[in-house]
Amino acid sequence: MEEKKRTTIVLFSGDYDKAMAAYIIANGAAAYDHEVTIFHTFWGLNALRKEENIPVKKGFMEKMFGKMMPRGADRMGLSKMNFAGLGPKMIKDIMKKHNAIPLPQLIDMAKEQDIKLVACTMTMDLLGLQQEELLDGIDYAGVAAYLADAEIGHVNLFI
Amino acid sequence: MEEKKRTTIVLFSGDYDKAMAAYIIANGAAAYDHEVTIFHTFWGLNALRKEENIPVKKGFMEKMFGKMMPRGADRMGLSKMNFAGLGPKMIKDIMKKHNAIPLPQLIDMAKEQDIKLVACTMTMDLLGLQQEELLDGIDYAGVAAYLADAEIGHVNLFI
Amino acid sequence: MEEKKRTTIVLFSGDYDKAMAAYIIANGAAAYDHEVTIFHTFWGLNALRKEENIPVKKGFMEKMFGKMMPRGADRMGLSKMNFAGLGPKMIKDIMKKHNAIPLPQLIDMAKEQDIKLVACTMTMDLLGLQQEELLDGIDYAGVAAYLADAEIGHVNLFI
Repeated sequence: MEEKKRTTIVLFSGDYDKAMAAYIIANGAAAYDHEVTIFHTFWGLNALRKEENIPVKKGFMEKMFGKMMPRGADRMGLSKMNFAGLGPKMIKDIMKKHNAIPLPQLIDMAKEQDIKLVACTMTMDLLGLQQEELLDGIDYAGVAAYLADAEIGHVNLFI
Repeated sequence: MEEKKRTTIVLFSGDYDKAMAAYIIANGAAAYDHEVTIFHTFWGLNALRKEENIPVKKGFMEKMFGKMMPRGADRMGLSKMNFAGLGPKMIKDIMKKHNAIPLPQLIDMAKEQDIKLVACTMTMDLLGLQQEELLDGIDYAGVAAYLADAEIGHVNLFI
Repeated sequence: MEEKKRTTIVLFSGDYDKAMAAYIIANGAAAYDHEVTIFHTFWGLNALRKEENIPVKKGFMEKMFGKMMPRGADRMGLSKMNFAGLGPKMIKDIMKKHNAIPLPQLIDMAKEQDIKLVACTMTMDLLGLQQEELLDGIDYAGVAAYLADAEIGHVNLFI
């Protein structure tokens, strides 16, 4: 039996453009029959947040972080030329014009292609994010699970 | 026949220092007989822009992006301590003093070593960059070509 | 004899959160019996600086860089939500509350696990950092040594 190729991406960044790059590579790899995992840690967890405000019990600091971080992929900023939020709008307008797929749909597509979307439980704990606040159908794991995937991987990226 | 080692770098960043790191690793790998590809996407495309203003027909948004993004490696900013453009000057002065090779020459050297410099066609389209505006002698490809290189690679980096 | 798995990380970033991610993955990999190298280059060198001011002879520019860059892991800023230094304090408070290990201790732990901590001599030269200013017990090397490790690696990351 032939071994399947494997792509494992750590998505650390909470920038719209970097998350887009991660999801484009991931969806491409899945289309070429790789087993793909995206391990979301730190600010990359924001891509997995539900858009609506989910009322959960939190400490003060955790509430602060929750308020300051964007809720969901569509609200994330750019790594360059963000211009206080104008940049993402420009990019999205231009993406629409060129029929490029916006990040929230890239995430949906990743799920349909059975890409394993993992939320890092250690940083969820730190940033005070709870499972109810994240998208349905994702996995929860720590660095050990990440390494188990990565060490047999062909393409490993930290984004 | 022995298989050649292969290094594949995604250059996403448009920062002078990060691009320098990418090109130093790439040139080093080529010197050690790796086959090397640098896949330039998003802001990393700016490293491949010609310095002169090339008049091409563009829509309004594409013109805006074109104006706001640096034309060529020598005009890129730093990821840290940019100080409104003073940082790159400091780094370049200090590089000259230490006989370190500036980014534009690192790119020339990469070409001489037959490193494959690829511009991501999807993000060129998004940012409104046209082939006339980019350096001569580079390749044009999409995520599928990147993955074909990366999945047989020994060193894969996202910078 | 079974081949040991190998993880090689380039730490380019001088951000507290990114360095934390690098050291968490590195310590995890070492715990799972990988041979691990962290190659510190550019701003990532700051994680290896001693906290105290070490008087060494330097040129003017090198002194400037030395003053402007943080001395040691504990003084590094965040890649997101730094809020002029308030962010790192928030993160450290919340880490204490959740019993997460602060970066300086993660570095100590890495040494105890025999993770090879390497300072990039080329960028030390550029930024004017001298061996006396960096932690004891680390290695000094260039891109050739990095590549020798990376090309036989299973997990290669650029952070």
